[in-house]
Amino acid sequence: MYTKLPPKGMRDFLPNQKRIRDEILSRINDAYISCGFTPIETSAIENLPNLMGGDGGENTQLIFKILKRGEKLNLNNEELADLGLRFDFTLPLTRFYSNNKNELPQVFKAVQTGYVYRGERPQKGRYRAFIQCDADIIGEPSNIAEIEIINAVIKALSSLGFQGFEIKISDRRFLVAIITENGFNINEVDDVCISLDKLDKIGKTGVEQELITKNFKKENIDRLLNAIESMNFDNIKDYNADSHENINQIRQAFEGKTNIVFEPTLVRGMGYYTGTIFEIFSNKYPLALGGGGRYDKMIGKISGHDAPGVGFSIGFERIFELIADEFETEKIKKTAIIVESSKKYSAALEEQNRIVEEGGIASIYLKKKKTGKQFDSLEKEGYEEFIKLF
Amino acid sequence: MYTKLPPKGMRDFLPNQKRIRDEILSRINDAYISCGFTPIETSAIENLPNLMGGDGGENTQLIFKILKRGEKLNLNNEELADLGLRFDFTLPLTRFYSNNKNELPQVFKAVQTGYVYRGERPQKGRYRAFIQCDADIIGEPSNIAEIEIINAVIKALSSLGFQGFEIKISDRRFLVAIITENGFNINEVDDVCISLDKLDKIGKTGVEQELITKNFKKENIDRLLNAIESMNFDNIKDYNADSHENINQIRQAFEGKTNIVFEPTLVRGMGYYTGTIFEIFSNKYPLALGGGGRYDKMIGKISGHDAPGVGFSIGFERIFELIADEFETEKIKKTAIIVESSKKYSAALEEQNRIVEEGGIASIYLKKKKTGKQFDSLEKEGYEEFIKLF
Repeated sequence: MYTKLPPKGMRDFLPNQKRIRDEILSRINDAYISCGFTPIETSAIENLPNLMGGDGGENTQLIFKILKRGEKLNLNNEELADLGLRFDFTLPLTRFYSNNKNELPQVFKAVQTGYVYRGERPQKGRYRAFIQCDADIIGEPSNIAEIEIINAVIKALSSLGFQGFEIKISDRRFLVAIITENGFNINEVDDVCISLDKLDKIGKTGVEQELITKNFKKENIDRLLNAIESMNFDNIKDYNADSHENINQIRQAFEGKTNIVFEPTLVRGMGYYTGTIFEIFSNKYPLALGGGGRYDKMIGKISGHDAPGVGFSIGFERIFELIADEFETEKIKKTAIIVESSKKYSAALEEQNRIVEEGGIASIYLKKKKTGKQFDSLEKEGYEEFIKLF
Repeated sequence: MYTKLPPKGMRDFLPNQKRIRDEILSRINDAYISCGFTPIETSAIENLPNLMGGDGGENTQLIFKILKRGEKLNLNNEELADLGLRFDFTLPLTRFYSNNKNELPQVFKAVQTGYVYRGERPQKGRYRAFIQCDADIIGEPSNIAEIEIINAVIKALSSLGFQGFEIKISDRRFLVAIITENGFNINEVDDVCISLDKLDKIGKTGVEQELITKNFKKENIDRLLNAIESMNFDNIKDYNADSHENINQIRQAFEGKTNIVFEPTLVRGMGYYTGTIFEIFSNKYPLALGGGGRYDKMIGKISGHDAPGVGFSIGFERIFELIADEFETEKIKKTAIIVESSKKYSAALEEQNRIVEEGGIASIYLKKKKTGKQFDSLEKEGYEEFIKLF
């Protein structure tokens, strides 16, 4: 049955929305480019075994799978699909890097923007096709990578009008230490982190309950939660001196410029982080505008060739919803050239060409019978000047 | 099994390729915007019944279909897929227009650029995911629409360095007349057009053979082919005076600016064209850089609400392959800031911020042991200036 709507959880964009989305993307890209990052592009369609075999966790259950075609499609076969739509940029970037690393610089600073797809239950502010903006530095083991990404992200968000930034920062190594020193096994760290990640949403009691449900010892849970509560930047050192020094260096780099705040409850969900983790906030908004971290083992695990990495993802859709209503883009004067008959077409083209060459916008319209209504409608479209060739 | 390559017929793009592709797209978009077109966006995923039920012809056999998810997937059900990837912008534009027409101007000038997907057998220069750039004017019955699109396309291609343009033009109404006046039935026109479209590829004898295979009378075929051969701009009038006047007005509009050449063998494959059809050529290249035409019945047929339309598609991938190797984009000076230790991070950020504010590109690197090799590699990346903080 024919339907005028896009599929569930997906969107079309009217001219005004599209203009704002393009401009936001373009400013983010430009900010990264000004800091030496280079845009790359990966295929939106990936081979399904790659998508399933990576570090995607629960996202692999949300993959839009593409049916095999022609003779390859066989209902008696166990696998009906051979391709899938990407659900993030992590796996595509890893594949891209391992495929092209001989042609890429030793320290590779990349930006990837575009749609990713997840078959989630649609709800307000959550879509099945949404834009992600990822920046990554691959090949730099030192924390100059974290510092450059933070500086570039601040530039990107500043260019969109955000201000009063605060970076909440922690380090996975410190979390691993505090978790294992409070009676948990190293294999349990990821599972504990998934619960700890919810501290700001469900509170200490909620996390405690969740960890109890996961069959961890109440005694250990209480020790861990108390230890986290009494944590501050000075006593992290007792848990992991490298983490402390790492965060300290990043804080010093931004001293007097941007607040870098140690946040003991910052966890971030993904299992692949191995070091620094961080999120960026702007004074007017309670939610993070983006987040990221260091993943020094992921590329090796997936591709077989180790390379350290730091990545950051800006929450494009959240930002679009926050600023779209009051977002101002550069306004170029629009002129409508109104012709009465084909005899004036040539003259109309000359006017159009002249105005466009001068940097303006000019569009030609045939005079309608009700010119009043026509002019009103063109004014509503943003036309300020009218050239009448009749 | 994990593979480093993108799926068959699909591509990743390295920084240099991505930069050129983005710049080509951006120039095409800017040219259209300067002529009063507005970019819109439609979902890359469409409901499968929409894709199957449109005017897509053979392309519907090439759809990448998306498997139903969760409980909806039932192997005993006749249809395993509920969604599909768009294979062109025609159907999405029609759906978009009928869904949003109350919010769109009466004469709606739209640009759509992005990927479309077709499961074709991959071959040199043909991909399964490729960019299309479509411009359309909906709601304008007069040929000012054709004229504006031609002028905008010339601006777009000029901005990419093409020159010496020639527009080959014809009119579907004239073709219908010449075909039916030579013994063919009106229902046979589309089928005859599909063969006539191949005149430049397989020649008169080839077309004759193909039409014989389709069981048309040899006598009619010969009459038709001779009539087309002896056709010129003056005697079209005998077949269809409106077509003649239409083409005449378009020629006059561009007189002294661009050659508009009547081409009796121009057919264009799609069945939905109802009037003017045209292709654009640039002096250096034998193949068309794009083509389009008027489709006054398509929107009504699909959406139930009639609206006249003219569309044009620029062959993005063909253009990318023609010009990528010698395409020059604006060069911004790149500075590498080299730091020896974390003590200089703060100073490095200050240098970076200063250079970026001045409009340059600046990136920070940690000094490697082999600085000679490091500097060589950065120079290869395009860094011209080096600031050493050690």
